[in-house]
Amino acid sequence: MTTVQRAAGPVSAAANGARHDPLERMFDPRSIAVVGASTDPGKRGYQAIRALIDAGYPYPIYPVNPKGGNLLGLTVLPHVSHLPAGVDVALIATPAQTVPRVLRACASAGVAGAVVLANGFRESGPSGIELEEELREVVAATGIRVVGPNTSGILNVSGGANLVGLPDVPPGPISVIAQSGNMLLSLVAESRAARGPGFDTYIGLGNQSDVRYDECIAYLARRETTGAIAVHSEGFRHGRELIATLADVTRHRPVVMLRGGRSEIGKRTALSHTGSVAGSDAVATAVLRQAGVELVERSDELAVVSGVLATTPPVPAGRGVVVLSDGGGHATLAADALSAAGIELAELSPATSRRLRELLGPAAAVGNPVDVAGATDDDPERLAECARCLADDPCVGMVLVVGLFGGYHLRFDSGLQGAENLAARRLAELAGTTGIPLLVQSLYEPDRPENHAILRASGVQVLASIDHAVRATIALYRRGRYLSTMEDRGEFRVSLSAAEGGQEVRPLDEPSGRYLLEEAGIDLGPWRLVRSARDAEAAVAAFGGPCALKVVSPQAVHKSDLGGVRLDVTPGTAEGAYTEIVDSLRSAVPDAEITGVLVGPMAPRGVELLVGATVDPIFGPVVAFGSGGILVEALRDVTFRAVPFSALEAKEMIQETLVSRLLSGHRTLPAVDLDALSEFLVMVGNFVATTPELAELDLNPAIASGSSIRPVDVRVVISDS
Amino acid sequence: MTTVQRAAGPVSAAANGARHDPLERMFDPRSIAVVGASTDPGKRGYQAIRALIDAGYPYPIYPVNPKGGNLLGLTVLPHVSHLPAGVDVALIATPAQTVPRVLRACASAGVAGAVVLANGFRESGPSGIELEEELREVVAATGIRVVGPNTSGILNVSGGANLVGLPDVPPGPISVIAQSGNMLLSLVAESRAARGPGFDTYIGLGNQSDVRYDECIAYLARRETTGAIAVHSEGFRHGRELIATLADVTRHRPVVMLRGGRSEIGKRTALSHTGSVAGSDAVATAVLRQAGVELVERSDELAVVSGVLATTPPVPAGRGVVVLSDGGGHATLAADALSAAGIELAELSPATSRRLRELLGPAAAVGNPVDVAGATDDDPERLAECARCLADDPCVGMVLVVGLFGGYHLRFDSGLQGAENLAARRLAELAGTTGIPLLVQSLYEPDRPENHAILRASGVQVLASIDHAVRATIALYRRGRYLSTMEDRGEFRVSLSAAEGGQEVRPLDEPSGRYLLEEAGIDLGPWRLVRSARDAEAAVAAFGGPCALKVVSPQAVHKSDLGGVRLDVTPGTAEGAYTEIVDSLRSAVPDAEITGVLVGPMAPRGVELLVGATVDPIFGPVVAFGSGGILVEALRDVTFRAVPFSALEAKEMIQETLVSRLLSGHRTLPAVDLDALSEFLVMVGNFVATTPELAELDLNPAIASGSSIRPVDVRVVISDS
Repeated sequence: MTTVQRAAGPVSAAANGARHDPLERMFDPRSIAVVGASTDPGKRGYQAIRALIDAGYPYPIYPVNPKGGNLLGLTVLPHVSHLPAGVDVALIATPAQTVPRVLRACASAGVAGAVVLANGFRESGPSGIELEEELREVVAATGIRVVGPNTSGILNVSGGANLVGLPDVPPGPISVIAQSGNMLLSLVAESRAARGPGFDTYIGLGNQSDVRYDECIAYLARRETTGAIAVHSEGFRHGRELIATLADVTRHRPVVMLRGGRSEIGKRTALSHTGSVAGSDAVATAVLRQAGVELVERSDELAVVSGVLATTPPVPAGRGVVVLSDGGGHATLAADALSAAGIELAELSPATSRRLRELLGPAAAVGNPVDVAGATDDDPERLAECARCLADDPCVGMVLVVGLFGGYHLRFDSGLQGAENLAARRLAELAGTTGIPLLVQSLYEPDRPENHAILRASGVQVLASIDHAVRATIALYRRGRYLSTMEDRGEFRVSLSAAEGGQEVRPLDEPSGRYLLEEAGIDLGPWRLVRSARDAEAAVAAFGGPCALKVVSPQAVHKSDLGGVRLDVTPGTAEGAYTEIVDSLRSAVPDAEITGVLVGPMAPRGVELLVGATVDPIFGPVVAFGSGGILVEALRDVTFRAVPFSALEAKEMIQETLVSRLLSGHRTLPAVDLDALSEFLVMVGNFVATTPELAELDLNPAIASGSSIRPVDVRVVISDS
Repeated sequence: MTTVQRAAGPVSAAANGARHDPLERMFDPRSIAVVGASTDPGKRGYQAIRALIDAGYPYPIYPVNPKGGNLLGLTVLPHVSHLPAGVDVALIATPAQTVPRVLRACASAGVAGAVVLANGFRESGPSGIELEEELREVVAATGIRVVGPNTSGILNVSGGANLVGLPDVPPGPISVIAQSGNMLLSLVAESRAARGPGFDTYIGLGNQSDVRYDECIAYLARRETTGAIAVHSEGFRHGRELIATLADVTRHRPVVMLRGGRSEIGKRTALSHTGSVAGSDAVATAVLRQAGVELVERSDELAVVSGVLATTPPVPAGRGVVVLSDGGGHATLAADALSAAGIELAELSPATSRRLRELLGPAAAVGNPVDVAGATDDDPERLAECARCLADDPCVGMVLVVGLFGGYHLRFDSGLQGAENLAARRLAELAGTTGIPLLVQSLYEPDRPENHAILRASGVQVLASIDHAVRATIALYRRGRYLSTMEDRGEFRVSLSAAEGGQEVRPLDEPSGRYLLEEAGIDLGPWRLVRSARDAEAAVAAFGGPCALKVVSPQAVHKSDLGGVRLDVTPGTAEGAYTEIVDSLRSAVPDAEITGVLVGPMAPRGVELLVGATVDPIFGPVVAFGSGGILVEALRDVTFRAVPFSALEAKEMIQETLVSRLLSGHRTLPAVDLDALSEFLVMVGNFVATTPELAELDLNPAIASGSSIRPVDVRVVISDS
């Protein structure tokens, strides 16, 4: 065996010198084994080697097949044990049943990581689940890293390490992590059809049995050749680690994400596809945004938004977007879509408008959007002059050119081609010198005019679709705002331990729940637990206004149904109310254990809110905020934040809800102090973050009025671990 | 002059024989004049004639220019008056100021209609508004019809009547009406890039000073060569006529619409672009849907949805959609998007799933979506077999194929090309014989494989984008449902007169409003107007439960603030309450005129709804329905229907709102009888339709519980016309 290893050539020690990180070795390998190498051109075991050779992969390739022999000019090793020590990655193209055995052999041979193509694991039912368990045991026992199983492979475009079998992937700044091989095909097809930026690295995670999203994202963020990370996922595990990694990565690299398996039927489909179980879509949406991820809703937005974010600077915070159009229809549509997304359109200075008027004459609209109204038809350079003039306005943070640019010589006069090329150069120069993002949408993009190539060569993206251009603009705008507020955002600690699913949980009685919150410094307003009618009267008198009385008893979960609640109690009616409450419960549940009666002032008139917390099975403890009272479930007006979070994040959370529209003194409702409300949410977040035994918290409704937030009911559930 | 007319050749009488409709003559002309003909190839007056000749326009073309001479082989007439009598359409390419004069001359020469290109009218400010007024006066005085001004022109593709100057528009079934020339350019560019269906007729309405949307839609629906009508609009006028026309047309032709000018800034942009003033976006959205229009939100959906609807049968009502995928990622995304749109995914019969299992083996997912999981990679015909098997299932109303189809020979093995072509033929045959819609999404569409051409030649559309495929599927599904419920939908009468804006309006006192509604048969529950304390007591006693008392006085608009309302009044407190109410008002407004006091039972516990009516400036009288009480404005949870409408339409209206989620007995709320609520809305709709003096109706909140709908306050505003 030793002889054969020598024959195949030892892996260069120099090449692997400082490379201790197995992921770095896998994704940028200096040696590759293909286990299950085949002479059949229809098999992945042939295609992979073919693809490596075609891509000019410069390092050793080791085909492995018991048959031995030669393949495409390479010596085929009969067994994994014949590999030289320290191969970086093994592509395993053998059937599912063989995988654990092959993996063990690879680990013995010092292979850093394996890419397992076979399906028939978790996604395929009970026997597959068992097989995947075995695979995980090998990983745990040996330390070998595994991408997959049920993956399409991995690809390092510039390094030629093509383990996905897809030829001619254009090189560029986009790195992709996906759970479906078709997603890479789609992205490459779309990017190629749209002449968009190409690709750096692809990682197909498949069932993500070992190597996970968070690790890959962290690795890709370290690659200088990666400008943006595009993620497709059908479900995460280790969500807390994921958002911690994302919050860190998005500070210096944009991450764009498309999620499948969001609907009930989609979840089922994802389960049978990659064995993924998705958690709550609403929680995932909220916490991924919190971590700075740009979420896209449509699959055709993933490539385009990633491509633009990878190549174009974000919109400087505090400035707006200007639309420069040579057609009113597109200007209107762009303005509509940007407005709907809450993007600020720059208010042009009078000087800018005057200058545009000089350039464009009386028919043009010189507000924002700017509609040149035909004034550039015979002189495309004038459009570039307008863009320059707009970029000079200090309110302008981005110029979005929409309409015909690049097609003037096709639409109006072929003699304009030179002028149009010149205009493209001027636009490119503008983008290069001002640092302000410039994006061009042109309905002549499919005609592939030369001037678009000029723009792209300078890093200015040209898009055919106005919808894509608007979507990318939204992403650039949001990213600018996000980056400018980094200091006001909370940091995630991964170590946060939390109650895990499957544990026994029990509700605390309301006074115990209140004590717990108050110990954490959360102001719930005045209340008292009393144990006699006389104490009840004294408490009501002390509060100086009508009060609510609630029985506290482990046997009275549904207090109201058991007559255990009295509202609008005055000092005069307090003793009677106390007695009635206790008697009601005793007659309903004769041996009820009565802890006491909780007395508190009636909640003031205000806005009914929900404040709560739960432990998401994927993302861990999150705080919930939204419309309270009877409407909360019906309206589903609730959003989430992973804990802990900052006041800025709490404010963003509030703004995401419909109920936020009621907080500024709507009709006869009192106005709510947003600082006080955010602070309350931050305190709740801190409490949740520091209370690992917490399973559930429910303050619903919490009545907000001015700077007071008064929960009517406090429900705390803890896990007994 | 007579001589010159003869020289130019008389318009063939036969050609215009039965053609009395000026719009038909304009849009399918047998003779064309180009006023402002030019020898300058940069001018529309040259390009138009060039385009007509290039398109092989077979009928007479009359260039008009004072210079006379020859142009592209045609004799140039020196003046419009030299035209032969009865020219069908004149393209007017002269400057704005000359237009009224030219139009008058055209009318004198018996020209049926004119297309006015010039801008500088309503969209450009005061002097333009004046000029457009003059244009309208010529129209009114002479009867000549005008498309524009500020239009890009019109185009009849098959007839060669190219008055838009855009060459090589592919012929096909889509007709387009737009308010922006760029929209046609976009649609043509998109359709060409996507190899989608081509175009039949284009009408650029520009400022729609004379010829309007409704007329053009009705005309296009009469064209047998038009399969679907794609509409882009920045604002309508005569909305009532429009929806009446649409409701009629959509029974036999799909109409797809993209609207610009929906946001505030978009409205401003549209105003400066086409002089359009948009009304309420929420009203327009609701009533256009009511009239059967498929509204698209993104500009890139207009061509694709129109193209699919023009060529593909709708999904039969009562059946669901099945997704057939050769990649799990796309299957999941499609399932998510269809679910989110409320599209029913077919529940496959066990026999179908068994058959699929036989075809596809153990790795496949044989529910819906079907994921072949690689089982067709080496045999694309198997995919066609699966489609056949699915189409045979009586629950299946549409097969959406997503993934790689058409690219198997590119992805896996070039030897598969023949099999893939055969599979395409079988899919095409399937679509042809079953009448069930079949749509193919393929990420290999940009590679233009032959098998896609085979599918398209048989009318099966192939789309590159999964998002587009899903959007088109939604449209086919909705259209099937719409067509199957035609008999249960109301009919619009255009003649409905309604209170117009700008009139004096006055609120009725509440009893008068109630009488008016009750005369129309609307049950508001028991109430009485009393004029003495004793009558108040008697009324409260008669109602047999706690009552609300409200003062009725023209001086007490804000009753509550003036102490004019008492709640929970019992027989024992009624006299006192009456006296207090009257005294309160008298002390606040000493000379208040008191009509009486309105007594009614307290509203039962129930769901707070808003029922109302308003006269939309564009679409006329509409009924509003949504969340009531304090939340209504904040949540904007309200939708509309043009009156009158049917019970089915009322139910659809209810289902569009968030508050509908509270109607089935949410938590402690009582359930609401949907039939009773729909009937109530229908009655309100009928009342509004037959009460032309009505300016506003507001039943807010109306408390719904079981089959009772009890408005707490009734506010009726009428116009004094």
